[in-house]
Amino acid sequence: MAGSTFGNIFKITTWGESHGKALGVVIDGCPSGVSLTEEDIQVFLDRRKPGQTAISTPRKESDQVEILSGVFNGRTTGTPISLTIPNTSQKSSDYSEIASYYRPGHADYTFEAKYGFRDYRGGGRSSARETAGRVAAGAIASKILREMGITVTAYTRSIGPVSIDMTQFDKEAVFTTATCMPDRQADEKATDYLKECMMNKDSVGGVVECIISGMPAGIGDPVFDKLDALLSRAIMSIGAVKAVEIGDGIHVSEAKGSENNDAFVMRDGQITKKTNHAGGILGGISDGSEIILRAHFKPTPSIFREQETVNKSGENIKVTIKGRHDPVVVPRAVVVVESMAALTVLDACMTNMSAHIDHLKEFYNKSRT
Amino acid sequence: MAGSTFGNIFKITTWGESHGKALGVVIDGCPSGVSLTEEDIQVFLDRRKPGQTAISTPRKESDQVEILSGVFNGRTTGTPISLTIPNTSQKSSDYSEIASYYRPGHADYTFEAKYGFRDYRGGGRSSARETAGRVAAGAIASKILREMGITVTAYTRSIGPVSIDMTQFDKEAVFTTATCMPDRQADEKATDYLKECMMNKDSVGGVVECIISGMPAGIGDPVFDKLDALLSRAIMSIGAVKAVEIGDGIHVSEAKGSENNDAFVMRDGQITKKTNHAGGILGGISDGSEIILRAHFKPTPSIFREQETVNKSGENIKVTIKGRHDPVVVPRAVVVVESMAALTVLDACMTNMSAHIDHLKEFYNKSRT
Amino acid sequence: MAGSTFGNIFKITTWGESHGKALGVVIDGCPSGVSLTEEDIQVFLDRRKPGQTAISTPRKESDQVEILSGVFNGRTTGTPISLTIPNTSQKSSDYSEIASYYRPGHADYTFEAKYGFRDYRGGGRSSARETAGRVAAGAIASKILREMGITVTAYTRSIGPVSIDMTQFDKEAVFTTATCMPDRQADEKATDYLKECMMNKDSVGGVVECIISGMPAGIGDPVFDKLDALLSRAIMSIGAVKAVEIGDGIHVSEAKGSENNDAFVMRDGQITKKTNHAGGILGGISDGSEIILRAHFKPTPSIFREQETVNKSGENIKVTIKGRHDPVVVPRAVVVVESMAALTVLDACMTNMSAHIDHLKEFYNKSRT
Amino acid sequence: MAGSTFGNIFKITTWGESHGKALGVVIDGCPSGVSLTEEDIQVFLDRRKPGQTAISTPRKESDQVEILSGVFNGRTTGTPISLTIPNTSQKSSDYSEIASYYRPGHADYTFEAKYGFRDYRGGGRSSARETAGRVAAGAIASKILREMGITVTAYTRSIGPVSIDMTQFDKEAVFTTATCMPDRQADEKATDYLKECMMNKDSVGGVVECIISGMPAGIGDPVFDKLDALLSRAIMSIGAVKAVEIGDGIHVSEAKGSENNDAFVMRDGQITKKTNHAGGILGGISDGSEIILRAHFKPTPSIFREQETVNKSGENIKVTIKGRHDPVVVPRAVVVVESMAALTVLDACMTNMSAHIDHLKEFYNKSRT
Repeated sequence: MAGSTFGNIFKITTWGESHGKALGVVIDGCPSGVSLTEEDIQVFLDRRKPGQTAISTPRKESDQVEILSGVFNGRTTGTPISLTIPNTSQKSSDYSEIASYYRPGHADYTFEAKYGFRDYRGGGRSSARETAGRVAAGAIASKILREMGITVTAYTRSIGPVSIDMTQFDKEAVFTTATCMPDRQADEKATDYLKECMMNKDSVGGVVECIISGMPAGIGDPVFDKLDALLSRAIMSIGAVKAVEIGDGIHVSEAKGSENNDAFVMRDGQITKKTNHAGGILGGISDGSEIILRAHFKPTPSIFREQETVNKSGENIKVTIKGRHDPVVVPRAVVVVESMAALTVLDACMTNMSAHIDHLKEFYNKSRT
Repeated sequence: MAGSTFGNIFKITTWGESHGKALGVVIDGCPSGVSLTEEDIQVFLDRRKPGQTAISTPRKESDQVEILSGVFNGRTTGTPISLTIPNTSQKSSDYSEIASYYRPGHADYTFEAKYGFRDYRGGGRSSARETAGRVAAGAIASKILREMGITVTAYTRSIGPVSIDMTQFDKEAVFTTATCMPDRQADEKATDYLKECMMNKDSVGGVVECIISGMPAGIGDPVFDKLDALLSRAIMSIGAVKAVEIGDGIHVSEAKGSENNDAFVMRDGQITKKTNHAGGILGGISDGSEIILRAHFKPTPSIFREQETVNKSGENIKVTIKGRHDPVVVPRAVVVVESMAALTVLDACMTNMSAHIDHLKEFYNKSRT
Repeated sequence: MAGSTFGNIFKITTWGESHGKALGVVIDGCPSGVSLTEEDIQVFLDRRKPGQTAISTPRKESDQVEILSGVFNGRTTGTPISLTIPNTSQKSSDYSEIASYYRPGHADYTFEAKYGFRDYRGGGRSSARETAGRVAAGAIASKILREMGITVTAYTRSIGPVSIDMTQFDKEAVFTTATCMPDRQADEKATDYLKECMMNKDSVGGVVECIISGMPAGIGDPVFDKLDALLSRAIMSIGAVKAVEIGDGIHVSEAKGSENNDAFVMRDGQITKKTNHAGGILGGISDGSEIILRAHFKPTPSIFREQETVNKSGENIKVTIKGRHDPVVVPRAVVVVESMAALTVLDACMTNMSAHIDHLKEFYNKSRT
Repeated sequence: MAGSTFGNIFKITTWGESHGKALGVVIDGCPSGVSLTEEDIQVFLDRRKPGQTAISTPRKESDQVEILSGVFNGRTTGTPISLTIPNTSQKSSDYSEIASYYRPGHADYTFEAKYGFRDYRGGGRSSARETAGRVAAGAIASKILREMGITVTAYTRSIGPVSIDMTQFDKEAVFTTATCMPDRQADEKATDYLKECMMNKDSVGGVVECIISGMPAGIGDPVFDKLDALLSRAIMSIGAVKAVEIGDGIHVSEAKGSENNDAFVMRDGQITKKTNHAGGILGGISDGSEIILRAHFKPTPSIFREQETVNKSGENIKVTIKGRHDPVVVPRAVVVVESMAALTVLDACMTNMSAHIDHLKEFYNKSRT
């Protein structure tokens, strides 16, 4: 219950600190028979790699994943898949300074309040490196979802004041621009904005949006495990997220019912909706439309200006943080959002298979013949 | 796993449909020795009662709670507390019309997609009445938290375009105004706005804010069970919520690090923060400041205008919903938000007791002497 | 986590004390579409009713179940099924004596050690009446299993020294004899033995055996959630059980591998086993043979002889328990064992539906056409 | 939910196959501040090492554990502890034969029935090597329990027909004899018996007993999570266990109440019991006496005689298994039983800390001062 496990049937457990020997994840409940290689996972991990663009610092982490169990002859066996990612790039720098005080905006103080002390090397368990395990597991969940006809796509919606123009949506750009924006013009503007931030020794926040397509209607549970509730928890559990929106999100609180309701309409013999203010979920259950969610990320807390804080002796001090830190977390967080959404949706789909007695009867009668 | 259970140690399971015989909740894991009467619970339930003001429809539900187990001689025994609330006010109206089509903005269609059919009487399990069980359990959680020095306070932050003025904060007004706004002027304006909505056969959304005070630093878990992640799930699991914010919420995505970071500072020998943009949580763990969250509610989907939809025969039709429906869900949802927040925080506090080996040693050595 | 919930997908939560207002159970995760009436449940409850034979005391409990939610038009809706059973027969006797000391063999002392005090009326939550909720839920699980082609049958295997003769197995007798033995001769002998026990103000233990037939191969999980591990927990959670055996059980510890191994053999084009020492489970997963388990029940702790014990003032005293108590718990426990086995097996079958990627692909591709 | 996770608060997840790259375990929820080295864990792992005595085959596995996370400066940090044990001794033998048929008494057939295929190398996930992860985690749980004053001791009670004489109990012998029997005479007899078994190409079962001392009264939950129920599941989840007994175990079913009830008695101002037929648990809650349990292990299924079975083409065949297999699993299983018992008891102790409101109030009021 210390909260490193996520999911009910497709269940992942992540472990590892920023500057320990390695990070990793164990995936339990993965169906057997899924074709899987390290390369399938590596492409996801590469999307969160640091040190690759003008708007990120020149740190290098190779993040090479290794499959230690659960795969045999190229297919998953149904038993736990253990993935490790060695930590190779940790500078053996002197952490004694950072160990002595609490960085503003970081979890230094709260970890000590809970556990009595902390692994202060690079943020320890509260480092964004912790998400590597999530992404490795998310790669597998995404692969399974694709085989089921469901795709999950996240991208940068905005960085600071610069938003994408949805009419210019260019999915390819998500994977090729430094900002992960699906709009090359916005990418340029955001890049300029970020360079200015870096010059000012400051950082900035942004928004990641995620679309889940191909989702059948009827997935999710009606009360505490509403699909949007589980997605919110999944997304808010990513460090630096401070708000989660589904569909029209915050705008619903100023909307009228006559604007916000989505009319149902028949299309090609299927029940669909004329609009999608709801973001694909009604009463906690998918309605067959695209599921849309947004995560608001705070600015990177590590900035290179002088800041006020407190040290472990209880003295007010002024500090200037050193090290290698991106001015915005959003581009690297895109694949993390995508992974958490995929994990949540796959788990909900698996749970849903026994929702109706006819499913059980059909499944078990078939297995008898 | 059908999602009617919430919490890890302080665990609640709600049940009941809008027009069934009763609704209820079972609370398992409540500590023994808590002084508890039906009146303690009733005051919470009365806060979500319908039919009491000019801006709500004249439906009456008595919502009288009965304790069936888990309390002996006025104190909780540590065993499950079963609470029931009979459904007394259901009009035995003709539901055949509503049974035949899918109301826009409601869960009618998604329930059928999942379960093959639905209890269409008054929304069945997807009715807002489902929250009665949450509130009954929340009353107990709140009581325990108060004994621990923690208070949870929710109120209406805005209705449509009308927001409260935080400088005029009047806590008493939360319990006495029809809107549950802690600002009597805003309450008047919002009431006028709602009356207009009702005349236009329309509805409107709003925002509920919740403050958790007295929270010690060090509560919550660092990864998937971050305190804000669990709060988000709790709040998003309330029907009609489409966005959840912690602290500065959506504003962080446009903020700079130099603005958003909260400086630590010593005050009265305690580590505190100069500002509270973080909303009391850093790295998923409470930092000792007030925890602040906001829930954005969509407009009531039941509006009295003609709307387009689809019927069960797959025909496009036009419908006009009848019945008794409030033009805004927010005032009655205030106590629901407060309850879900209390349940989440209490559970996190209980979980936290074994975070450090010294706690275990002290606890068990004491129990030996 | 206070342990009143059982199951992962088909999840039940029981509540209620022996002498409170009522007992009950909430079943969450029951598939929709199951035809269900109160009568379906009542037949199971009637099997555990007290006060019906010469070898039980003349207490009467009507144990009438009421369905409060989750069923609409005679079918389960997929939402929580709340069942209550009012407590009607509690004698308003003076419990002050029993309240003052700890009965040997009962949970009086341990409840106080844990919770600080106890509901001493009739054993409170530790009363065997607690199993009424399990049986009510078990009736539903059994019904679903039967629709899937799986039957669960429990019966009394022995009472004290009197065992049934398996060659005389008469299933009908389980439901008609006072001992629930499927062997009328053994029933007579056991009845005589019990009458003697009653004359001697003593009680006796016994064994319940349970057979699960029609179980497909491949159900259960390989490590901690082995099907036999979950069954053991389920059965050992019944008060008074002190040992659980699967297949040959305790005899395996003296057996040789050459005797204990079950040879596989083709029969009618199916893989089967020549013998069934394993009791239908290999490596935690069902092998398609009958699943066989046995529960050893201790003698009823309430005996009418003088016993030594300690009172709440910490004095050694001698007591003679009064009241109405059966000399053996086994006959009434038969349906409890059957219910717990059914709940476990159904849950495992539901969990198993997503074990292979082909199941997911087939399920979700079908739901698209 | 694929069942590789055990525990509620102190939660472990094991992974790995017999002939994969490595095995391991992730421990989440370990309290911070526990002094921990690899050596602490290695001593437990060394107790289950194969290839060390005359009654075991000469296979060598070094089983060197490595701590990858969760420990900093020699103390646990409260974050997940990841432990790996590389597989170094796997003979790259030809598994094509074993891959083609189902070994009697093994999980070959049931794995294929569930997952469609299996990792046939050395039993894959169903190999006894899977328990290495449990033992590594058990070492940590045992260490914490010792700091709390609780000790867990398992030993071989019997092998085939040879039982220990409890009056000769010699705890040291558990760690030094080949059989792990705490009785050197019995060890000799059992060793002779095993040598005979080996000559006859046969194997034999046995019993492991486990004693938990220093257990405070009041630990465990009253209904489904009874301490004995959780222990049973834990022990039965060890491969080859077919029966679990608590206290007098199977003998209670022939006992009389007057014999089986344990009288309470004051001793040194403490409530104790004159006898301990109950094995330290009443109503699912510890009573302060020693907790006693026994596990019955079946004979090693791999025997070197010719056996009948079925191959993957559905033909009846005769096979003679080759390889390296101990004639009895019991000596190496002793530390596995001890580990599973320690994990269960520690988790129950951690859960129990919030059982009473006074605990919560005291804990949180202290954390404020």
